[in-house]
Amino acid sequence: MVSNLSQLGLSQLVQGMLAGHRLSLARLISKVENRDGDVSSVMEQIYPKTGKAEVWGITGPPGAGKSTLADVLTKHLRSLGKKVAVVAIDPSSPFSGGAILGDRIRMQQHASDPEVYIRSLGTRGKHGGLSHATKEVVLLLDAAGFDVILVETAGVGQTELDILRLAQTVIVVLVPESGDSIQVMKAGLMEIADIFAVNKSDRPEADKLVRELVTMVGMNPHDEHSWMMPVLKTEAQRDIGVKELADAVQQHQAYLTRSGQRDLKVREFLKNEVADILMERLVQTVHDAFKTPSGHQLLDSLAQRKTDPYKAADSLFET
Amino acid sequence: MVSNLSQLGLSQLVQGMLAGHRLSLARLISKVENRDGDVSSVMEQIYPKTGKAEVWGITGPPGAGKSTLADVLTKHLRSLGKKVAVVAIDPSSPFSGGAILGDRIRMQQHASDPEVYIRSLGTRGKHGGLSHATKEVVLLLDAAGFDVILVETAGVGQTELDILRLAQTVIVVLVPESGDSIQVMKAGLMEIADIFAVNKSDRPEADKLVRELVTMVGMNPHDEHSWMMPVLKTEAQRDIGVKELADAVQQHQAYLTRSGQRDLKVREFLKNEVADILMERLVQTVHDAFKTPSGHQLLDSLAQRKTDPYKAADSLFET
Repeated sequence: MVSNLSQLGLSQLVQGMLAGHRLSLARLISKVENRDGDVSSVMEQIYPKTGKAEVWGITGPPGAGKSTLADVLTKHLRSLGKKVAVVAIDPSSPFSGGAILGDRIRMQQHASDPEVYIRSLGTRGKHGGLSHATKEVVLLLDAAGFDVILVETAGVGQTELDILRLAQTVIVVLVPESGDSIQVMKAGLMEIADIFAVNKSDRPEADKLVRELVTMVGMNPHDEHSWMMPVLKTEAQRDIGVKELADAVQQHQAYLTRSGQRDLKVREFLKNEVADILMERLVQTVHDAFKTPSGHQLLDSLAQRKTDPYKAADSLFET
Repeated sequence: MVSNLSQLGLSQLVQGMLAGHRLSLARLISKVENRDGDVSSVMEQIYPKTGKAEVWGITGPPGAGKSTLADVLTKHLRSLGKKVAVVAIDPSSPFSGGAILGDRIRMQQHASDPEVYIRSLGTRGKHGGLSHATKEVVLLLDAAGFDVILVETAGVGQTELDILRLAQTVIVVLVPESGDSIQVMKAGLMEIADIFAVNKSDRPEADKLVRELVTMVGMNPHDEHSWMMPVLKTEAQRDIGVKELADAVQQHQAYLTRSGQRDLKVREFLKNEVADILMERLVQTVHDAFKTPSGHQLLDSLAQRKTDPYKAADSLFET
């Protein structure tokens, strides 16, 4: 009975969310984030409604102005009548500092706009859980009918880079001070970026950074069918260059469709989603197996070096 | 035949490593890091020789002086006749900048000492691969007979925090400038730290940070059996306070044994190691399954929203 009731609760929340109720959406996101309740049943119900939203990633070093840029991009998208959701991944590291809270408060200028939804995901996930939960939250927002979902990360680790893979277009935000480390970052940047934004471009050295990025992009192997990553100057705080940035994203989205890349990205995302689901189950299964008497014995043998982790994995797999 | 030859090669490397040959160790580490060859057979051979080394984690924000501290700790441990290995995890983020290279070069003062081994692991892992490979590298160093293994990370993401779990004692290095963000970092710090080192403690505000940390530690729930995290002042560059830090680690190691915590940590590590192994296999299996004709069909159905990722995971699991 309890289980049925909770099922009913979830279905009602899903219905509410699809009907545009903000509170149902917020509660579903919390449930998915905290793996509270039958997440798989939620995802099964909403999945057919997904696949319509554009997902834009915004990443860059701390202090680059990502949140301000997300804020101003939201304003531009609203002026085009688009429904916008912003998902901000709070850094999972205890050393990342505290700028985030202020940023979130600033974004509240959109708080009264029913067509804008802003959500921070901050819980550090276990076993890649943050990355998986975030992707599912984006699917929820997609099903809820948002036209554009901005995913903002500080891009500081494997988890965040994994999350960025769900974006179709990734904007890498740099600031003139980033110039010194460009050579070091090069490989990583080229791998994730679709568009470069040199923000705070009123500062000295901005043009130098732009030139370096343009050179870097030009040296990347490409032919006439490749996407040439644009390098744009922005001053998010004064709303300079942000409209052009939004236009560049639209061009990239058109390129994705034209080139067939969009379909490849969707398939890659789906493969990883299925792998994530199986992985989450596996972790639970292993966790449970070690709680049984034979699991305890196995752990004893391991601790006494009578067996090794690979043989233990074999025997666990068989049972 | 080829497979037998490569087996023989690995066994010879393992024998060489156990006999103290540095080149065999270096080649085995590369193989484990790159998942090149039969890693499981290497681990099966070396596992019975593990469990003797002390593993110390060193983490903290960029610029806190972690590498210098590792360097001076190494010097102190050498003066006690201990064999020391240093594993430095290069940040996986493209935004982390380029201080690392210089640090590694500085550590070369130990390069001529055959009882010190220094290795950077820098490749970004797929699916948590970096974290798993790093743990296995530490097991290799343990089997190779190092008394203390220092694992240094910038602690900037899930991967790095996961790596820290293999350390028995974690030193969190902060600098006076970190003071402002202590409140924000609080929960994360208390979770990972066993010892706090306030480095660059000649700077203003050092005492203020020490007081804040002491207060924070005191407010943590504890009884007479708990470990009270010490807060130590260091100036690694001038070798001030580092001996006291090494002593504090020894006290923590003694506490782990006395309290039974060591055994719990070993068992937790082993559980995760087995889970990691199964996870690595699962990822490969899923990857392979999507290359088959039925895998392609499944992906088509997913892309067309005829099925959902959870149902797809079920059907993949059954086949």
